[in-house]
Amino acid sequence: MAGGVADEVKLLGHWGSPFVTRVKLAFHLKGVSYEYAEEDLHNKSELLLRSNPVHKAVPVLIHNGRPICESQVILQYIDETFDGNLLLPADPHERAVARFWAAYIDNEMGAPWEKAYRARTAEERAEWMKQIVAAVDALEGGLRECSKGKGGFFFFGGGGVGYVDVVLGSLVPYVHAAVVLSGDRLFDAGRTPLLAAWLERFGELDLAKAVLQDVDKVVEYSRAIYARNAAGVTS
Amino acid sequence: MAGGVADEVKLLGHWGSPFVTRVKLAFHLKGVSYEYAEEDLHNKSELLLRSNPVHKAVPVLIHNGRPICESQVILQYIDETFDGNLLLPADPHERAVARFWAAYIDNEMGAPWEKAYRARTAEERAEWMKQIVAAVDALEGGLRECSKGKGGFFFFGGGGVGYVDVVLGSLVPYVHAAVVLSGDRLFDAGRTPLLAAWLERFGELDLAKAVLQDVDKVVEYSRAIYARNAAGVTS
Repeated sequence: MAGGVADEVKLLGHWGSPFVTRVKLAFHLKGVSYEYAEEDLHNKSELLLRSNPVHKAVPVLIHNGRPICESQVILQYIDETFDGNLLLPADPHERAVARFWAAYIDNEMGAPWEKAYRARTAEERAEWMKQIVAAVDALEGGLRECSKGKGGFFFFGGGGVGYVDVVLGSLVPYVHAAVVLSGDRLFDAGRTPLLAAWLERFGELDLAKAVLQDVDKVVEYSRAIYARNAAGVTS
Repeated sequence: MAGGVADEVKLLGHWGSPFVTRVKLAFHLKGVSYEYAEEDLHNKSELLLRSNPVHKAVPVLIHNGRPICESQVILQYIDETFDGNLLLPADPHERAVARFWAAYIDNEMGAPWEKAYRARTAEERAEWMKQIVAAVDALEGGLRECSKGKGGFFFFGGGGVGYVDVVLGSLVPYVHAAVVLSGDRLFDAGRTPLLAAWLERFGELDLAKAVLQDVDKVVEYSRAIYARNAAGVTS
């Protein structure tokens, strides 16, 4: 296990990126100190381009000089490398269930959400948001499954925060921002009561307070992106 | 570790699916016996619908009554549950590199390839194939990185077949079929010499001979799908 004083741990990120937020959440849970470098996504650093030549995207974790890219790959690397509570469950079947839902969140919520943020019009954006709402309905069943027999429906990891909570938790400020931006209540007490309770409970964690972005700032940031898209500015 | 005589291991699959092929390759590498049930994708079994209610897709592994879905989740479950050579490397950084390229293959080659197979016209299909060719060029760099210092450029896993080889190996019959179907030489001795050598070497393995589909059958199957798409038959 690494994480000693001599370790060099550097995270290349962008404050607005939920994919970066995940890595911050994992480090906070593990109690790992790290150096953080904010990237200008319109003028990426040489270090970023050299460390992630394939995707040229944040987050990149640089551990003792070796880069690791892609947020879920980074999370699993952190879990396997640094001491502290495991993010993934110890039982192989529970691990498989957690990996299934984490992939689901990225493919069925994250991917259309990224498309929504690239949409030129509010109508186009609304179509993508509809897909996300449908995906969230299935995720409600996932939370029921993951927390079954764990004495509570509070987290995907059962009684404590785990891998899926970190992956989904990174989207929490954007879930709140969507209510303001478009009136979309993705996690709704009527439609998805477990996820609505999860949202509240996750937000109350010290972890969330320490790491998650301010919702007003996300709303402002989102509006600036929408305006740029509407004007046809490519980034 | 499981894999004893008492274990019930059942795979729900479809002969044409590369995602199912991966699971077969992993079981062959680990020497695990399993029961195989071929699904009719136009009339899916109750067992499939109950075991994978979210995606309703193959492959599904049912191990001692518990379903595991999504091919890469299944591969990692097999690696963590059954005896035999590990698919993922033991070193955490090498594991991260393998997971990165495995995700890359699915996102940058698999996803556009699925879209190519849903295209209505040959022109539309050609556009998707162009994306795949560009993705393969970057993958050439991945093979160079994964096999660095491993005494040969033969496999992503270095001297032996590993996780990325299994993920990519499942596409081998489709790589050969593309030459016949559209003239696309995805792995080319001039453009991607390492991958062209990998393709030849992978095909020579007993593993490949035992598991991979016959290329002529894949060509015929693909032509039937193209014809159905052109006629506007939804499946």
